[in-house]
Amino acid sequence: MAMTRSLEVKGQPVAGGKEPLICAPLVGRDEAAVLHELEVIVAKRPDLLEWRVDFYSGISDVNRVVELAKKIRTSSAGIPLIFTRRSTREGGETIGISEEQVLSMYRAVARSSAVDFLDYELSSEPEHFEQAVALACETGTKLIASFHNFQKTPPADEIVAKLVAMEEAGADIAKVAVMPQGLEDVLTLLQATLEAQKKIRLPVISMSMGAYGSLSRLFGWVFGSSVSFAVGQKASAPGQVPIEDLRTVLEVLQRSLKGE
Amino acid sequence: MAMTRSLEVKGQPVAGGKEPLICAPLVGRDEAAVLHELEVIVAKRPDLLEWRVDFYSGISDVNRVVELAKKIRTSSAGIPLIFTRRSTREGGETIGISEEQVLSMYRAVARSSAVDFLDYELSSEPEHFEQAVALACETGTKLIASFHNFQKTPPADEIVAKLVAMEEAGADIAKVAVMPQGLEDVLTLLQATLEAQKKIRLPVISMSMGAYGSLSRLFGWVFGSSVSFAVGQKASAPGQVPIEDLRTVLEVLQRSLKGE
Repeated sequence: MAMTRSLEVKGQPVAGGKEPLICAPLVGRDEAAVLHELEVIVAKRPDLLEWRVDFYSGISDVNRVVELAKKIRTSSAGIPLIFTRRSTREGGETIGISEEQVLSMYRAVARSSAVDFLDYELSSEPEHFEQAVALACETGTKLIASFHNFQKTPPADEIVAKLVAMEEAGADIAKVAVMPQGLEDVLTLLQATLEAQKKIRLPVISMSMGAYGSLSRLFGWVFGSSVSFAVGQKASAPGQVPIEDLRTVLEVLQRSLKGE
Repeated sequence: MAMTRSLEVKGQPVAGGKEPLICAPLVGRDEAAVLHELEVIVAKRPDLLEWRVDFYSGISDVNRVVELAKKIRTSSAGIPLIFTRRSTREGGETIGISEEQVLSMYRAVARSSAVDFLDYELSSEPEHFEQAVALACETGTKLIASFHNFQKTPPADEIVAKLVAMEEAGADIAKVAVMPQGLEDVLTLLQATLEAQKKIRLPVISMSMGAYGSLSRLFGWVFGSSVSFAVGQKASAPGQVPIEDLRTVLEVLQRSLKGE
């Protein structure tokens, strides 16, 4: 339907340009948990995987992180992988390493060719964000700039400004996740997603979180969000719906939008 | 979940207050077609039926209309019935009778106790609309005031003003159906639906039409639309989705909104 822009890996659209792409998070605490989760999730054939490394207890040992990234790669049936350290500032887990160590870990993982996408937060120090941009360029990975607000939904123009800032900062993909305080806020996020596409050329990933926000996970792609995060085995953020449920709704929506 | 207000028949909420109510239209051209359609539709257990009498070729004979209304009642397994003449001005079929004859027909049908709801357009002459209000009061039927725009979606405040005018004019239920020219317009309709509930006490029925508008038929109840019109056998307006598809999406949504 071309409601969204494609994410690409090595010049090819992920999942043949399917929309939206369904991404399942890996949030295991240790290697065994991550690999078990991966097995369960791969069987559900998502289009993307996201390893939330801030959940991993071995995060302070770069070698262990790289080894596990490689194991995920080996067992993921070719499904492209996003590598993400979510900061506590934006809803992530507490980790015991500095931002410089985080960037060293990003470098080692990206250079190992085990991942296709790096998620790095726009709210990082500008010099750190520049390093992430340079790393993506050097390794041929794609940089997802992200912004999260777990308390509220900023006005539409502020959300659009964040997405524009991501493009200006050198990201390849612009992602925003915000919490609605009411149903109006879900509409605000969808409106901002539509508007952003007139202002920037990057693919946009957007979502409203929580129970009301689950609406945006089901039909935000119609308004231009290229990816919907869904539960493979365990949610990484509030409001994620099971992959099976998302697929069921997508089938109906795709028929309805064609006017069938 | 109490996202919507109940429609009532004889003081009881239709379908026990289920939300949204699914309404299937009857659009047969003759008695045989209507009764066949009814059989197919009743098997799909909608919560409401709407007989679009402007599709019926026998519309100029009041006795035939009353007789068919009674037959529909007998074969509709207790499903409440809406009686609707949609005008050509608002997307209906061409009929060969005057507005006075339309109101005579409404009177005969309402007094026959064959129907529970009357749909009458807000854009009618005020004296005609007053007669519809008086008729609903006299017969214990509920009056749905309706407004349709098959060309475009007015700004949210204009839509809200229409719904407020319906309450002021004495309607029991306020209904608006508008055509989106883009996805923004679908958000406008949902926004207006939310806002209207702060301004009036009536149950609201709202929808955006066409392919994009099908989104509102699936999710509009979350924003306060009490009824979704779905295809039992044949659509009466563009963008209606099959009852089965609507139910499938509703099940997922109801789980998601509970945060399950």
